[in-house]
Amino acid sequence: MATYRIAIDGMGGDHAPHSVIKGIDLFLSSNDSKDHNHFLIFGSQKELHPLIQQTKYLKKCYDIIHCDQIVENHTKPLNALRSFRESSMARAVKAVQEGEADAVISSGNTGAYMAFSKVILKTFSFIDRPAIPAVIPSVKGFTVMLDLGANIECNSQNLVQFAVLGHIYAQEYLKMDKPRIGLLNIGVEDIKGHVVLQETSDFLSTMSGLNYIGFVEGNDITNGNVDVVVTDGFTGNVALKSIEGTAHLITHFMKESVLASWRGKIGYTIAKPAFDSFKKKSNPSLYNGAVFLGLKKIAVKSHGGASDIGFASAVRVTTDMLKRHLTEKIEQCDYFKELIF
Amino acid sequence: MATYRIAIDGMGGDHAPHSVIKGIDLFLSSNDSKDHNHFLIFGSQKELHPLIQQTKYLKKCYDIIHCDQIVENHTKPLNALRSFRESSMARAVKAVQEGEADAVISSGNTGAYMAFSKVILKTFSFIDRPAIPAVIPSVKGFTVMLDLGANIECNSQNLVQFAVLGHIYAQEYLKMDKPRIGLLNIGVEDIKGHVVLQETSDFLSTMSGLNYIGFVEGNDITNGNVDVVVTDGFTGNVALKSIEGTAHLITHFMKESVLASWRGKIGYTIAKPAFDSFKKKSNPSLYNGAVFLGLKKIAVKSHGGASDIGFASAVRVTTDMLKRHLTEKIEQCDYFKELIF
Repeated sequence: MATYRIAIDGMGGDHAPHSVIKGIDLFLSSNDSKDHNHFLIFGSQKELHPLIQQTKYLKKCYDIIHCDQIVENHTKPLNALRSFRESSMARAVKAVQEGEADAVISSGNTGAYMAFSKVILKTFSFIDRPAIPAVIPSVKGFTVMLDLGANIECNSQNLVQFAVLGHIYAQEYLKMDKPRIGLLNIGVEDIKGHVVLQETSDFLSTMSGLNYIGFVEGNDITNGNVDVVVTDGFTGNVALKSIEGTAHLITHFMKESVLASWRGKIGYTIAKPAFDSFKKKSNPSLYNGAVFLGLKKIAVKSHGGASDIGFASAVRVTTDMLKRHLTEKIEQCDYFKELIF
Repeated sequence: MATYRIAIDGMGGDHAPHSVIKGIDLFLSSNDSKDHNHFLIFGSQKELHPLIQQTKYLKKCYDIIHCDQIVENHTKPLNALRSFRESSMARAVKAVQEGEADAVISSGNTGAYMAFSKVILKTFSFIDRPAIPAVIPSVKGFTVMLDLGANIECNSQNLVQFAVLGHIYAQEYLKMDKPRIGLLNIGVEDIKGHVVLQETSDFLSTMSGLNYIGFVEGNDITNGNVDVVVTDGFTGNVALKSIEGTAHLITHFMKESVLASWRGKIGYTIAKPAFDSFKKKSNPSLYNGAVFLGLKKIAVKSHGGASDIGFASAVRVTTDMLKRHLTEKIEQCDYFKELIF
């Protein structure tokens, strides 16, 4: 039986602090492990205390650390580093560095959170830039895609590091032995993408321990033919948002078509449990929570718009990754030793 | 009453020549305009003739021009230009240049088709590289996205030209007066994308006649908040394929959920007409057919896997763009005169 001490930015996110507090309690209510969890919640004592008093489980395992400052959504990373050192976000990150907590979670400003995490928790020496992965449902299960972070222009060294980080993340998060790794590209004849992608692909092909399957295309992200999709942060962001938009569009079309006729309405009423199970399956909240990969400690980013269900998922990801010793596995991974360019 | 003479690559595409011949006939069967159409079909006389004899409408308005050569899917553009000059594809394109046809359609190898079209039909002097647009269904109608072609790395001049081409295409294809133009980017704080995107955005903001609304993100492609999404060919391809993959995924989830229970099955049976209308709405075949924008004549690319319904859509796009004088409108567009960098 282990104890996991998690630092929480209580004020980060569009629906904070409500969604944060309710989310932690939701996680605790459904947590069937024997492990003990303790939450260090950073933010306004006045706002947090009454909310926590209303919870069933969290009120037994928390501390509030009062902070006046909150990092706003529009605060730029450098400005955050300079002027928001006493914010709930910065202090939650610092708690991990100072050994008071094992991991940190925030739904706040991604750029600022990444900046604090890099500066305070540090990146492993063999990693140039930490990456943000996303877990996306696919026809056959889930796909890890990375980077979804601020790495907009990447060289092949960055992409190879992302591939190895994705490999480890898929092993721990998706519990796969030999995740299939693909490099996102386009299938236009003759011009198979940028030179950087060619170089990356050539290098990945030489790494015997990785299950590198070559170039994949946008539709492969969701078709179950690959487990880890490697790309730069720009393309990854566009792909992820396109996927989210389309999921919304198709659900909208479906609803519109079904509700347009009485037959559709009756059929829908009868099939409602099926629709509910579909809705649940395609609910992005259930996959919320992304580890900043490559840092020496676990920092988990929860979506800015995360609901309580979403925040509960982020807490689950955090305890899961602590349990599976993700950062130790990254530290000890032999592949990175091969990565001398 | 006008006559439109359309050159057809009878042998291009995965299901050619069947899908091509049936597709033209399907178009003719549903064509309610008074205009006359004539089809010059290039390919194997032996294969095409019996198929055309089985049609109802096409058999009254066609010529077969026999060609032995077919451009294969794996043929590289340069090789096609060198060794496939007598192919059904090349000769169909040539027919437009020689004044025997007004436009050309092919479902064949995109790279080779673009190469033949550029070399034979020529690009307008004020356009650096032709672009391939896609028309994508959205919550509120349709969105034009470009480029989906081989323009992988683009400078701001290319992107500004795509914006103007997209503006004209949306006016003619979507019949919009002032299409809203957005530049595809990501919303990461502080780092709003590449320098090229910043430059492009700054320039587009100065073009008073264009309805430029600024940066948009991946989810905007389908949410109806923008009419023309401008991006490079790499990002555009990844976004389009991600959208296609997700549409497939969500439909798969829906089916799986509904068919997993008897209530779901009964509900589905009752609501079937609604599901059919949904299927129709999300059928990409209905939006098949993309004009190579920036060429002096109309060349339309039909998807390689297009069915007869898909090919019919490509013929519809072709006659529509001829009717609306698309190339003349591009030629006469004042915006391009502003584009002196």
